[in-house]
Amino acid sequence: MAIRTVVWGENVHEQKSKVVQEIYPDGMHTCIARALAADTALSVTTATLQEPEHGLTKQRLAETDVLIWWGHAAHGDVDDKVVERVCEAVWAGMGLIFLHSAHFSKPFKRLMGAPCNLSWREAGERERLWVTSRHHPITRGLPDSFELENEEMYGEPFGVPEPLETVFVSWFQGGEVFRSGLTYRRGAGNIFYFRPGHETYPTYHDANVQTVIRNAVHWAFNPVQRIADPNAAPNVPVDKAPEKIEERGPKLHKAGEAGLR
Amino acid sequence: MAIRTVVWGENVHEQKSKVVQEIYPDGMHTCIARALAADTALSVTTATLQEPEHGLTKQRLAETDVLIWWGHAAHGDVDDKVVERVCEAVWAGMGLIFLHSAHFSKPFKRLMGAPCNLSWREAGERERLWVTSRHHPITRGLPDSFELENEEMYGEPFGVPEPLETVFVSWFQGGEVFRSGLTYRRGAGNIFYFRPGHETYPTYHDANVQTVIRNAVHWAFNPVQRIADPNAAPNVPVDKAPEKIEERGPKLHKAGEAGLR
Amino acid sequence: MAIRTVVWGENVHEQKSKVVQEIYPDGMHTCIARALAADTALSVTTATLQEPEHGLTKQRLAETDVLIWWGHAAHGDVDDKVVERVCEAVWAGMGLIFLHSAHFSKPFKRLMGAPCNLSWREAGERERLWVTSRHHPITRGLPDSFELENEEMYGEPFGVPEPLETVFVSWFQGGEVFRSGLTYRRGAGNIFYFRPGHETYPTYHDANVQTVIRNAVHWAFNPVQRIADPNAAPNVPVDKAPEKIEERGPKLHKAGEAGLR
Amino acid sequence: MAIRTVVWGENVHEQKSKVVQEIYPDGMHTCIARALAADTALSVTTATLQEPEHGLTKQRLAETDVLIWWGHAAHGDVDDKVVERVCEAVWAGMGLIFLHSAHFSKPFKRLMGAPCNLSWREAGERERLWVTSRHHPITRGLPDSFELENEEMYGEPFGVPEPLETVFVSWFQGGEVFRSGLTYRRGAGNIFYFRPGHETYPTYHDANVQTVIRNAVHWAFNPVQRIADPNAAPNVPVDKAPEKIEERGPKLHKAGEAGLR
Repeated sequence: MAIRTVVWGENVHEQKSKVVQEIYPDGMHTCIARALAADTALSVTTATLQEPEHGLTKQRLAETDVLIWWGHAAHGDVDDKVVERVCEAVWAGMGLIFLHSAHFSKPFKRLMGAPCNLSWREAGERERLWVTSRHHPITRGLPDSFELENEEMYGEPFGVPEPLETVFVSWFQGGEVFRSGLTYRRGAGNIFYFRPGHETYPTYHDANVQTVIRNAVHWAFNPVQRIADPNAAPNVPVDKAPEKIEERGPKLHKAGEAGLR
Repeated sequence: MAIRTVVWGENVHEQKSKVVQEIYPDGMHTCIARALAADTALSVTTATLQEPEHGLTKQRLAETDVLIWWGHAAHGDVDDKVVERVCEAVWAGMGLIFLHSAHFSKPFKRLMGAPCNLSWREAGERERLWVTSRHHPITRGLPDSFELENEEMYGEPFGVPEPLETVFVSWFQGGEVFRSGLTYRRGAGNIFYFRPGHETYPTYHDANVQTVIRNAVHWAFNPVQRIADPNAAPNVPVDKAPEKIEERGPKLHKAGEAGLR
Repeated sequence: MAIRTVVWGENVHEQKSKVVQEIYPDGMHTCIARALAADTALSVTTATLQEPEHGLTKQRLAETDVLIWWGHAAHGDVDDKVVERVCEAVWAGMGLIFLHSAHFSKPFKRLMGAPCNLSWREAGERERLWVTSRHHPITRGLPDSFELENEEMYGEPFGVPEPLETVFVSWFQGGEVFRSGLTYRRGAGNIFYFRPGHETYPTYHDANVQTVIRNAVHWAFNPVQRIADPNAAPNVPVDKAPEKIEERGPKLHKAGEAGLR
Repeated sequence: MAIRTVVWGENVHEQKSKVVQEIYPDGMHTCIARALAADTALSVTTATLQEPEHGLTKQRLAETDVLIWWGHAAHGDVDDKVVERVCEAVWAGMGLIFLHSAHFSKPFKRLMGAPCNLSWREAGERERLWVTSRHHPITRGLPDSFELENEEMYGEPFGVPEPLETVFVSWFQGGEVFRSGLTYRRGAGNIFYFRPGHETYPTYHDANVQTVIRNAVHWAFNPVQRIADPNAAPNVPVDKAPEKIEERGPKLHKAGEAGLR
């Protein structure tokens, strides 16, 4: 069965900036979705900020295996309820790939528990991404390095938690470096952050970038059935304990009472 | 200079429950603070939920090297502004030790980006903590294992991100296990979660438990000066780039403009 | 294409001990191989210590996607050349699953760079394995915990490096705990250690244990083409540098010279 | 009490190369040792390949808190017995800092269990090290980045296991990047790899490099008493089990018998 993939685009620059429109006439999300659709193992749709509930209803998320997120100008406009819903879907097993300026998106910051800050420069300089985790599934089909002739610079220190794996590190013409591909797991959900993709450059038309995102979808997909309630904290009554025990000592909760939160 | 340590106690059970009052007549936070004060390298004070701003003003946090957090019945009463302030202090370099039911406290959930859920049983059963990271600084002076005759059970799966290090794993009489001591880093701040400490048992009077918390304070202390603004995302202008570059291509931001969030 | 899986058995207890023969009349490796063969996505064969080159020639390893290793009585009899060959295959991308007493096998110790020691007791006691990484691919189809009525005890501290992920933790009737399922990556190869499997108990006939090993084969499989020489340390001549540079300053190596090792 | 620090130098280039002699007339190890000796919290000595047992007798290692290792031309001349002894000291709690070309030293490869390979170029190009773990103790007193005007290039992919923490990433003038500062733990020992230090450049005279090494010594120091036998795998007899159990089922070992290795 195909991996149900949703490309979420903020879709703001595309409406306001001629530069962006020329590069992505149908929107960045559409460009990414088309590149992924070339892989017949994926079933790809899109969603945008402007749709009701940003196109991410509870039902839609329940039917999404991997979500891809691009945002920049309107992070603050994303409804906190949707953010929480997205995070819960991740905890239940949905994969989530954050692209470029999504480092400051609400769901990324929420899932990292960290500032997610960095230094930056918009000068169209050369970026070269180096593979640091050789033959990682996300690097399949890539050379040891590849270049993007024009990109925005993101520089270290990048304020994220230590990742499970560092998959790419970027070199910038202006002298900075950046950990460009990082994997995380939160609950049952796999998370990948991938740096490139400034809106004024044709990054998502690049074959290597498309390969990375396609690989990442396969990597992030968790085939195990979604966890029904990823926040459940069940009480195990004394008579249901795996080993026979007798209750002892004082206690606060009455039998059958829910735990405090 | 002494490590400035603040023991934060929710201080609710102590006001309402005779059982808890008998074990901790001056409050759990006071019991923990006294145990720590025996270490002359520490300068220890307390704070509670009931104080203005929960005793955690911006000024107070700026002068706190390591914060210890115990909460259970009133997680929801903790002001979100204080939660954010505490997290920012961690990102800037403050150490933070979460005890027992603080797994569901707002700052812990915020810093983990995960459900932090578990299974539980209040039966006064035996817990035995095993060291899994031998001679870790937090285990200094401890045997390979130690017992608490009466404790609440917390069982796996524990919904937290993979830690930097697993320092303790608990065995429970009723048949469960739990990763009882976990280290994390968020920004410049060291975080330690330590499981034991149900309010109806005399856990914080236990010498081994006191040793763990005392060691953890030393471990969590970051002697490097606090980061002024842990959320800063500075622009690096083209003429300040470490390597000489020329600006190329289209751009979205005007020179000197702040980045989008 | 099927995942080419080789189950390597030391095959010594099976020849010497009546107890083991009765449980595993065709050898432990054969029992494991049969369980895996039920999965049509796997192509399963076996190899043993007694075969020439222990059945692990260079050619055989080149055609092995995932190797499973069980050893105990004859760790010292495994040829160091074969050990190095196995490790190089891992670095090049072969998956490797270590079972039970293989914690003291030469390849495991070589790949971990650590003592890999533990405490132990052979008393046929009850072991209960708890999932600690919920909905990890290796736990697919399993409940939150499962029991083995008779097993050898392995106790913490387990002298291994911090894993990428802790997937299982065991509870033992006699009071110990153990991190029973751990993932690692070395070079391009995925490694999984799985604790159960003492030779005098019918552990590998257990359906849950079989499920774990089968899942682990799928997880460990790296579909990316094997690295030709995983130890290569190529020189990048000045005129092949990605960015144009001029050679400066004194140097030790002549142009075209191999690096020192 | 001072941290007993030993700087181990291969001391081969210094004897054979005029270029190296001019930069380090008393040897690279002496230069590093002098820089460390400025810190009164450290008690610093040196050892070299040419001394009996390479200056690393069992007694000497027992009295060493942190060892620093520089080698390049004569990795193969280091006695395997000394290598094993060094690794056992690490497992027992000794800190170990590997510098530059020590990535291919026997102890580093032994402790990593991985190829430890990389690409390289000796062109005296500019290296800029960026802090990636802000306010990590090893970065104390450093700016976010610092430069070395002439260095050898080391390029990714670097064939090491995922570290506990990535502390530095290097930018190279010729277009490559490298994870230049990595932390690990093996047994009770803290390990730090630090990239800079090619013998034909004055890297160890650089104040920032000296600061990193000095900080790393403090970080690597494990104040807990050394583990007596870091390889011990003790049997826990049935009557010494923490919980009362009865022996059941068949067994291989007789009571009191040592385990198999």
